[in-house]
Amino acid sequence: MSLDNPGSLSDAANAIRRGDISSVEMTKAALARAKASQERLNAFIEIEEQPALEAAEAADKALVDGRETGSLHGVPLAHKDMYDRRGFVTGCGSKIRAGHVASDTSTVMARLQAAGAITIGRLNMSEFAMGPTGHNFHHGRALNPIDPALVTGGSSSGSGAVVGGGVVMAALGSDTGGSIRLPAACCGVVGIKPTQGRVSRHGVMPLSFSQDCVGPLARRVADAYLLLQQIAGPDGLDPTCVSVIPPQDLTSDLSAIRIGIAGGMFADGLDGDVAKGMELAIETLSSLVGTVSSATLPDLASIAELANVVAMAEAGTAHFDGMRERPEDYGPQIRMRLSQSLAIPAPIYLRALQIRAVTLKACLDTTFAQADVLIAPAMPFLPPLSADVDIGTSPRMNAVVSAMTSLTRPFSYLGLPVVTLPVAQSQGGLPVALQIIARPWREDLAASVAQSLERAIALPAFIDRSAA
Amino acid sequence: MSLDNPGSLSDAANAIRRGDISSVEMTKAALARAKASQERLNAFIEIEEQPALEAAEAADKALVDGRETGSLHGVPLAHKDMYDRRGFVTGCGSKIRAGHVASDTSTVMARLQAAGAITIGRLNMSEFAMGPTGHNFHHGRALNPIDPALVTGGSSSGSGAVVGGGVVMAALGSDTGGSIRLPAACCGVVGIKPTQGRVSRHGVMPLSFSQDCVGPLARRVADAYLLLQQIAGPDGLDPTCVSVIPPQDLTSDLSAIRIGIAGGMFADGLDGDVAKGMELAIETLSSLVGTVSSATLPDLASIAELANVVAMAEAGTAHFDGMRERPEDYGPQIRMRLSQSLAIPAPIYLRALQIRAVTLKACLDTTFAQADVLIAPAMPFLPPLSADVDIGTSPRMNAVVSAMTSLTRPFSYLGLPVVTLPVAQSQGGLPVALQIIARPWREDLAASVAQSLERAIALPAFIDRSAA
Repeated sequence: MSLDNPGSLSDAANAIRRGDISSVEMTKAALARAKASQERLNAFIEIEEQPALEAAEAADKALVDGRETGSLHGVPLAHKDMYDRRGFVTGCGSKIRAGHVASDTSTVMARLQAAGAITIGRLNMSEFAMGPTGHNFHHGRALNPIDPALVTGGSSSGSGAVVGGGVVMAALGSDTGGSIRLPAACCGVVGIKPTQGRVSRHGVMPLSFSQDCVGPLARRVADAYLLLQQIAGPDGLDPTCVSVIPPQDLTSDLSAIRIGIAGGMFADGLDGDVAKGMELAIETLSSLVGTVSSATLPDLASIAELANVVAMAEAGTAHFDGMRERPEDYGPQIRMRLSQSLAIPAPIYLRALQIRAVTLKACLDTTFAQADVLIAPAMPFLPPLSADVDIGTSPRMNAVVSAMTSLTRPFSYLGLPVVTLPVAQSQGGLPVALQIIARPWREDLAASVAQSLERAIALPAFIDRSAA
Repeated sequence: MSLDNPGSLSDAANAIRRGDISSVEMTKAALARAKASQERLNAFIEIEEQPALEAAEAADKALVDGRETGSLHGVPLAHKDMYDRRGFVTGCGSKIRAGHVASDTSTVMARLQAAGAITIGRLNMSEFAMGPTGHNFHHGRALNPIDPALVTGGSSSGSGAVVGGGVVMAALGSDTGGSIRLPAACCGVVGIKPTQGRVSRHGVMPLSFSQDCVGPLARRVADAYLLLQQIAGPDGLDPTCVSVIPPQDLTSDLSAIRIGIAGGMFADGLDGDVAKGMELAIETLSSLVGTVSSATLPDLASIAELANVVAMAEAGTAHFDGMRERPEDYGPQIRMRLSQSLAIPAPIYLRALQIRAVTLKACLDTTFAQADVLIAPAMPFLPPLSADVDIGTSPRMNAVVSAMTSLTRPFSYLGLPVVTLPVAQSQGGLPVALQIIARPWREDLAASVAQSLERAIALPAFIDRSAA
């Protein structure tokens, strides 16, 4: 196997397990790629060379000693800078937390460690995970590996960049309104936003407690799903982590699967390339699954706005003390958005929560009675130029945030699991990304469809256009 | 036994069971008292003579047939007008719901029916249970049986009036910030606000879902506690009803009980009569229990305000549609208070919920580590004159609401169980009421102390001062 292209996560772990390559060799190669990528991608807040090498050495020694290992044994990964690890900094892409050393380890990181994974560094992100473009006032933005002039999408900007750029095979991100799906879409990789309550948030930076989800970004569906399986499941340290059925194995038998195509706001006013990509995906899916037809959706007209109300009200609470004590240490855009949260009346917030329950029920009773998975584009347009959406605190701020997240937020609000993957390349070589949405706890259905579609479309990797 | 003074609830039920008196006789007497009281107390929104007599006849027939009966078999009661009964009106003291016929029966009413109790009517209350004085724009206020010039307290105004006035032996009320305890205090009777989560709210008018409690008012502690035991316990129809330990039987062995006296805001600035009443209660308790000493309390300086923020935010949500569609049908004071709820920022509401958890933990770790029950006055002053607190929408509105509820709201916010009982008579013959507060689920401790205190003090009944 090639050090720089080791196939799948399982291939990489197997190669280490078989002794074809050591964890130290693989980790050194990843560290070298990480360092080499920094100038071009600015994806790492910190590369943790020494701890990574020590962990890799320990992984190799464990193999020699014949100690049982997890399914990611010795494989180097990197993650969004918001998961606590005891003794390490969790910076959250911020100035305020820049030097914050965690005293405990988050459940997701503990589970990845138990699976044997090595962490080579902390990845860039939108400050406190707020912002769908990936801009960061303090650290500068991570750059898109397809074209540095484009946004990576946010907030898991570094995760999209390092996976798309081939630095590591997979990375954890988090998604509150699209923060896994948008960087996956912009960087041409796969992302999974799990069902609300599927993955523990113990030790994870909070943004919006009713919508925050931790999930993977990876090059391939199988890799993302493997990562999800490692981190999923009940956790005594997080009472909101209530998943009952573990993520089931993927299947390639889709003959009984009914696909519903989301219409209305998910189909109107799409860019030409996005509309064409959707057509291609639908055509391909028709040959893979039982049926493909228009989905019946409940009234979702104001759903993205309701989701934003909930997210911002809860974000304003998470940053209540910070905004009172150190407002000047927030980036201007984040500070302005958090200030706006104080203008949301409490009854409107609670009302938005009530409407969520009603809408979810309508969605389960109609949409998911008629379809097993729903499909929709991830964004209504192609990955935008950074300069076009670098809005700072301009009056366009809320409009840009709304436009970027208009098709992802609804499923955050409803707590549904979504797999995002690239399904077409635009004329200009940019990815068009699809969302595959399932009913709660059925990530396996969405990911099975995604995997078959990925194989059928067999998209070439998105390469650096700026070098062309 | 006397029809108009049948001793305890158990005595009344036993008398019916033994055949000393029929349910019809007892119910007819209660209906006669109810009708006679209307001009003087205005405590009933509706007297349900025919259904009550039919139910009493059925109860008598059941006894003749030897069918098993509950512990309130055949005993006439009346309740605040906010508990659904299939086919009956639930008016909530409002114009908006004045003709609303319920399609289902609330769990509390179903349980009282199962216990054999007869309902003779719907009782007056503050509109939608908002308002601690008991004024009602649509129905007029219920009048205090001790002196019609005084408020009954609210919002369970009719419940306080009929129990204090001897119309029925007990009545259900509800308490969100003091709405059981204040009418009990003003009318010289006993009230129990249960632990949050102890009593089902299925089919009960919502005001503030995180603080609403259903509980009893009665002449004697034992009667109130018996009623609590009938309505308490888990309910599949209300997921917030989570009580695990049923209310245990009362005990008169208090030798191991440690009583903590609440200081600070609970002791400062009390009216002379209230302070004197507290001294008497403390002196009496000293001879009844193990120890009586100053309690250690967490910082509760802004706790009443936080409780009000939570209550009003949630009330604004419960009335969101009503205020949008029929604002003119709310009484002016209620309409103004509900309008104000829109000025509460969502992050402040969520912050208030967070502070609640922290404060409750501090309270359990300190206060209730050192004491089994806590005591505090129910109000800082004697029952006020109706004219003095008939504030309508005047600028004094919020001040009066705050003053009335200043000592009761904190325990609503913390979700703790409280038994309120009169412990002294002022110079002018007015009741001074004590709150006995326990840790969650330990109503039995508070009620055991209350019952011993009630026996030791042996207060004469509060009589109609206006007749003197």
